[in-house]
Amino acid sequence: MTRLPAEGRCRATIDAVLPNVDDGRYPLKRIVGERVAIEAHCYADGHDRLRAMLLWQIVADRQVADRQVADRQVADRRVADPEADVGEVYEVEMTADVDDVWRADFLPRVPGLYQYAVLAWVDPFDSWRHDLERRDDVQDIRVALSVGAALIEGAADRAASGDAESLRSWSAGLRTAANDPRSDGGRLKTMALDTGRTELARRHADRRFATRRDYTLIVDRKRAEFSAWYELFPRSSAVQPGRHGSFRDVEEQLPELARMGFDVLYFPPIHPIGRVNRKGVNNALAAAPTDVGSPWAIGATEGGHKAILPALGGFEDFHRLVARAAELGIEIALDLAFQCAPDHPYVTAHPQWFRRRPDGSVQYAENPPKKYQDIYPFDFESADWPALWRELKSVVDFWIDQGIKIFRVDNPHTKALGFWQWLIDAVKREHADVIFLAEAFTRPKLMLGLAKLGFTQSYTYFTWRNSKRELTSYFIELSTGPSREFYRPNLWPNTPDILPEPLQSGLRPVFAARLVLAATLSGNYGIYGPTYELLESAARESGSEEYLDSEKYQLRHWPLHRPDSLRSLITRVNRARRENPALQSNQELRFCTIDNDQVIAYWKRDAASGNVVLTVVNLDPLHVQSGWLELDLERLQLDPRMEFQVHDLLSDQRYLWRGPRNYVSLDPQRMPAHVLRLRRRQRRENDFDYFL
Amino acid sequence: MTRLPAEGRCRATIDAVLPNVDDGRYPLKRIVGERVAIEAHCYADGHDRLRAMLLWQIVADRQVADRQVADRQVADRRVADPEADVGEVYEVEMTADVDDVWRADFLPRVPGLYQYAVLAWVDPFDSWRHDLERRDDVQDIRVALSVGAALIEGAADRAASGDAESLRSWSAGLRTAANDPRSDGGRLKTMALDTGRTELARRHADRRFATRRDYTLIVDRKRAEFSAWYELFPRSSAVQPGRHGSFRDVEEQLPELARMGFDVLYFPPIHPIGRVNRKGVNNALAAAPTDVGSPWAIGATEGGHKAILPALGGFEDFHRLVARAAELGIEIALDLAFQCAPDHPYVTAHPQWFRRRPDGSVQYAENPPKKYQDIYPFDFESADWPALWRELKSVVDFWIDQGIKIFRVDNPHTKALGFWQWLIDAVKREHADVIFLAEAFTRPKLMLGLAKLGFTQSYTYFTWRNSKRELTSYFIELSTGPSREFYRPNLWPNTPDILPEPLQSGLRPVFAARLVLAATLSGNYGIYGPTYELLESAARESGSEEYLDSEKYQLRHWPLHRPDSLRSLITRVNRARRENPALQSNQELRFCTIDNDQVIAYWKRDAASGNVVLTVVNLDPLHVQSGWLELDLERLQLDPRMEFQVHDLLSDQRYLWRGPRNYVSLDPQRMPAHVLRLRRRQRRENDFDYFL
Repeated sequence: MTRLPAEGRCRATIDAVLPNVDDGRYPLKRIVGERVAIEAHCYADGHDRLRAMLLWQIVADRQVADRQVADRQVADRRVADPEADVGEVYEVEMTADVDDVWRADFLPRVPGLYQYAVLAWVDPFDSWRHDLERRDDVQDIRVALSVGAALIEGAADRAASGDAESLRSWSAGLRTAANDPRSDGGRLKTMALDTGRTELARRHADRRFATRRDYTLIVDRKRAEFSAWYELFPRSSAVQPGRHGSFRDVEEQLPELARMGFDVLYFPPIHPIGRVNRKGVNNALAAAPTDVGSPWAIGATEGGHKAILPALGGFEDFHRLVARAAELGIEIALDLAFQCAPDHPYVTAHPQWFRRRPDGSVQYAENPPKKYQDIYPFDFESADWPALWRELKSVVDFWIDQGIKIFRVDNPHTKALGFWQWLIDAVKREHADVIFLAEAFTRPKLMLGLAKLGFTQSYTYFTWRNSKRELTSYFIELSTGPSREFYRPNLWPNTPDILPEPLQSGLRPVFAARLVLAATLSGNYGIYGPTYELLESAARESGSEEYLDSEKYQLRHWPLHRPDSLRSLITRVNRARRENPALQSNQELRFCTIDNDQVIAYWKRDAASGNVVLTVVNLDPLHVQSGWLELDLERLQLDPRMEFQVHDLLSDQRYLWRGPRNYVSLDPQRMPAHVLRLRRRQRRENDFDYFL
Repeated sequence: MTRLPAEGRCRATIDAVLPNVDDGRYPLKRIVGERVAIEAHCYADGHDRLRAMLLWQIVADRQVADRQVADRQVADRRVADPEADVGEVYEVEMTADVDDVWRADFLPRVPGLYQYAVLAWVDPFDSWRHDLERRDDVQDIRVALSVGAALIEGAADRAASGDAESLRSWSAGLRTAANDPRSDGGRLKTMALDTGRTELARRHADRRFATRRDYTLIVDRKRAEFSAWYELFPRSSAVQPGRHGSFRDVEEQLPELARMGFDVLYFPPIHPIGRVNRKGVNNALAAAPTDVGSPWAIGATEGGHKAILPALGGFEDFHRLVARAAELGIEIALDLAFQCAPDHPYVTAHPQWFRRRPDGSVQYAENPPKKYQDIYPFDFESADWPALWRELKSVVDFWIDQGIKIFRVDNPHTKALGFWQWLIDAVKREHADVIFLAEAFTRPKLMLGLAKLGFTQSYTYFTWRNSKRELTSYFIELSTGPSREFYRPNLWPNTPDILPEPLQSGLRPVFAARLVLAATLSGNYGIYGPTYELLESAARESGSEEYLDSEKYQLRHWPLHRPDSLRSLITRVNRARRENPALQSNQELRFCTIDNDQVIAYWKRDAASGNVVLTVVNLDPLHVQSGWLELDLERLQLDPRMEFQVHDLLSDQRYLWRGPRNYVSLDPQRMPAHVLRLRRRQRRENDFDYFL
C-alpha cells in the first residue's frame, strides 16, 4: 500500500503563487522600493475558515554600503515598512479576494537575495468565530463559548507571558459567562467576538498543520533597471594620436561623460594581452611586432584575470579613476571574459582546466571550419571543475575588492549555465548590489535562460530590430510576456562586435533615431561610445558587421570634439531620462496606432508619479514622415475635451493637443524624434505654469 | 561561500516540459490508446550538440484484467508500440524542432499510473560528429578521427559484449586509417560518419552528466472519458407500488437500461441506514416509524460501509446483479459517502475518529444555523488519522473485491484533500481501472483541485448553465483552458439533490434539450433516471431545487412505461454517441456562430477517424427558432464548392448543405435539437452511398 504522508492533517492547498518564474524554479526579480505583490490560490475542504500568511526574509549577507545605495535610490517613501534585517522573518497576513485568491505584499528596501513563502492553514479559531457569528440559539452559544474558551487557552499556551495572561483571563471570563444562567445570547456573543482580544488570539494561531510553498526573489538596486552605459577602449583614449591610452587619459574624459549623462562606463578587458598567436590589425592571423592584440585574449607573463595591462597604468591609477568616476556619479563596469590566451598563467598552473587534443596540446576555440588559435576556452567538463569555479569566483571577488560592482559578462552562453547560477548567487549573497550584464546574442530560450538563472541585465535583439513591426512585436513581448518578471533588457544600437547594417549608411538620422529608441524603449541602454557619437560607419568588408580598423585589434584615436558629434543629442536624451521616472523602468510600455509605417510611437508611464513620456520616431532617414497618432486617453486618464500639453524634451518646444488623434510630422534632417512629456492642464485659473 | 552543487558538469537545461499540470505537481491524464505527446525546451551553453530522451514506465501494480479491458478498447492500432511491462523503463529519442523545442511521444496501451521523464545532455559523440561534418582540412580530419576513436571506445566500454566488439573494431579501423598517410580526407570522413555504426555508438551514449525532469501521468481506460450514467434508487425499483425494491428488481430493469444505451448504473448508498435522528419524508426532522430514511445516513446495528441494507438483498443478489449487468455492458457504480449515522458501528468502535462537543457528545454536521443531527462527519484532524485513512481505503478495497470499479464520491470537497490524493493513488496502483467521479458542486478552484489530485471524472456547473452565452463560455473554458489536461466533465441535467429551475417547468422540450446538451457537450454524462425520463418537475417548495417527495427520504414508484417517457429520445441519443467517435471524447469542441441567441450549435471531431458531429439545440421550449449557422469549412476540411450531407441521427433525416452558411430551424414541440453527422461526398461516380 502507498505510504502515508508524514502529516495527513495539513488540509489547505496552495495551488498557484503568482507571479512566479517557472513555478518557483528561478527567482523573481524586483527593484528596491518596488512592492512585491503576491497572489496565492488557497483553499481547503469544507466550510472552515482559512488563514494565509506571506513570510519573507533577506537571506544574503548584506553590507552597510548596500543599504546606503538603497536609501539614496528608494523613490517610493510613502510606505513606512520597517527596514528589514538579514535573517529576520517578516510576516504579512494575506487577505482573501473572490474565488479563493489571497493577496499580500511587502516592500523590499535593501538589495539582496530574498526568500518568501506562502503559508495557509485551516484556522480553528477563525472557523469557530465565523460559526458563532451565525448562531442565535442561546444554548448553542453557550456550547460555542466553551469550545472557544478551549481554543483561546491553546493560543495562550503558544503565546509569550503578557499575551498569555490576557488570553487566559478572556478564556476564563467566557467560561464563567457561559455557565451563568442569567447571561443572554447577545451579551455572550459580544464577549466572544471582542475585536481586540480576537486579534490577540489570532496572533498566536495554531499553525501546526499549515501548508507552505517557498520562493526566491532577487532585489536589486535601482541601477539594475535604469542605467546609461558608455563603452570605450581605454587604450584609445589618449589625446595624442598614436599614443597608448591609459586610465589617466580616461580620467580626463570623465567630466564630459558625466555631463553627457552616462552613469556606467564600461571597459573591455583591462588585463595583460597574450602574445602567443596574437591577432593583428583587422583580425589578421599574424600580428606585427607592434600590434597590441585583442583585449579578450587575456593573460600573458605579466598576469591574467587579476592583473592590469601595464600600459594602462597600475592599480593606483585604477583606484583613482574609480574614485573620481564615483564622485561624478559614474560607475566603472569591467568585462568578465572567462577564457585565456595561450600564454595565460592558468594554462601552465592548471592544465587540467583545459581540454587536450590527441597530441597533448591544448584545444583552442573552434567552430569548424573557423579556428580561434589565440583563445583557449576553459573546459567546464573538467574533473577539477570545483577548483575552476572557485578560482573564477575569486576573480570577481578580486575586482569587487577594487571597487567594481558592475560586470559585463562576455559570451556567458558559451560557459556552463550551472556555473553562472552558482557564481551569481554566491556573489550576491555577499555583495547584493553587484550587477551582471549578460552579453549573449544567441537563441531565444538561451537568452531567457541566462536571465532566469540570475543575470541582472541582458543584451537583446534590439540591435537588429529596425522596422516598426519588428520593434513593436519584440517590445510587446518583452514588456508584457512572462519574461518581464526576470529579463531586464539593456539596449545597444552598436557594440565593438556589431556595426549593424543600417548604421553602415553613415546617415546621421539613423544614428539619432537608434539612440532615441534605445534610450526610451528600456530603462537600460548603452552605446559603444566614440564610434557611435562620431557616426563611425565603415565595415571591414561588405556583408560584415565588423568595424573596419576595429579597436579590438589596434589603437584608434577619436576626435571627440568634432562638430558633427552626436554629443548634444545624447546629452538631451540622457537628461530627459533622468528627469522622467517613466523612462527609468519598464513598468508600462504601450504602442500607439499611427497611420504611417515609417513612424513608431509609444508611451511609458511611471505609476507612482503619474509621469508619462510619449516617444515618436521617424524610421525613415531620408524623408519627412507624418501621420495621425492615436492615444488611448482613457488609459492615460486624460479628459478628451481638455487640452493637454506635449513638451518635446529634445527641442524644448511645447504643443497643445486635444482628443485622441493628433498630427505629428518629423523631418529627419532636423530631428527624427520627439520625446514628449505629457503635461496635464491644472485646474487653477490664471496660473502661469498651468501644465504639470 | 555558497555550496557547490553535487555535480557541476550537467550542462543541459530543461526549461519547460509541456503539457503539464502545475509544472508537474499533479499528474497529467490520458486515455489508453491516446498518444502522450511531450514537448520539452532543452538547451545548453556553447555549440555542442544536445540529445534528449523521453523515458516512461508504468509504476502501478496492474492486473491481468486491466490489460484485457485495455485491449478491448484501444482504437488506435496503427502503431506497433511494444506492450509495456510494469516497472520496465522505455525510451524514446526526442527530436529537435526549431527554437530549442524537443518532441517525442509514446502510446500507453494499458491503464495505470505512469512516470515519465525528460533527460537531456550535451552529447560528446554527436558534437564530434557534427564538427567532423564541417571539416575539410585532411590534417584536421586525422586529428578528429583520433578524437572520435576515443569516444567510440568509451561507448564500447558502456555497451554489452556484442555491441562492444563492433564498436571496438570500428574505433580501431578509424585509428589505423587516420594514421595511414595515403588516406584522403573524404574517405576518412565517410568511414567516421558511417550511419549504421553511428547508431550503435549513440545507443551507448555518455549520459553521466544528463539533466532530468520527472513527471507523472494517469492513464485511464476509455470509460473514464466516455460513459453514459443512469442513477436510480434500488429501493424504488419494485414493480408493485409500495413494496421496498431490491437488487432483484433492478436486475429486471437491466435489459431495458442496456437497450437505452447506458453503460454505468449508479446507486446511492446501499448500506444499512441509521435509525438515530433519522429524517422523515421530505426531510422532516422526525421520522415516522415506517420511514425508510436517507441512504446517505450510513450505518446501523446491521453494519456500516461494508454491509448491505437487508431489504435490498444479500451479497449473493448483489454479485448476481453485477454479473448480469456486465453481460449487458453495464457497470454498477457505488456511492462513496464517507460519513456516519449516529448508530454506525464506527462511532462506538473508533470514537477518536469523531470530533466531540464540550459535553462529550459527538459533533454532528453543522453549517450554522443549519444542523444535520443524523450525520456525523469524520474528523480528518483526528490524531488517529492514519487508521481512519486506512479503514476508509479498506472500504474501497472491499467493494472492488465485490466487482465494483466505479465510485461516485459524495461531497469529496468536505473531506481532507490530502486524503483523496493518497486514497486514489493507493487504489489505482493496485487497480488501475478504477474510476472515481467527484460529486463536488463548490467553488471553481476547489472543483479543479479535486480533479488535479486524481479524481477521474467531475461533476460540473453544467447543471446551472442554461443560456447560450453561459454554455458557450463555460465549455470553451473546459475544452481549451488548462483544465483540459486533468478535468473530465461529467454532465448531469439533474441529480437527487438538484431539480434545476428550468426543469421545474415540466416542459418536455426543456428535458429533451438538456439531455441532448449533456450527452453531446461531453463524453461523460448522466441522468438521475426515472425522474428525468418521466419529466418529474415538482419542487418541494418554491425557490427550492429539492424534489417534492424525494426518493432520498421515501420509497417512490415509477411508471417506467408511461407513453410520454423520454426513453425513445434517450435511446437515439445514446446510439448516436456509440456510433460516433466524435462524441466519445472532448478532444475538439468548437462553437458555431449563429444569428439567433436561442439557438446554440457546436461540433466535435475525432482526429483519428475524422468523424464530425454537429449539434444544434433550440434553447427556447416554446417557439420555433431559426437562423443561419456558420461553419468553419477550412477547419473542417470541407470544400466550399462541394455539397456535403448532414444526417440527423435523431430524426434520421438527411440534408444537403453547401458553403459556410446554412439555414436551420427547430420546432421544440417536435424536437428541439439536431444531432447531425457530417458526411463528405465521395469522389466515386454513380455510387449509391456516396456520402461517408
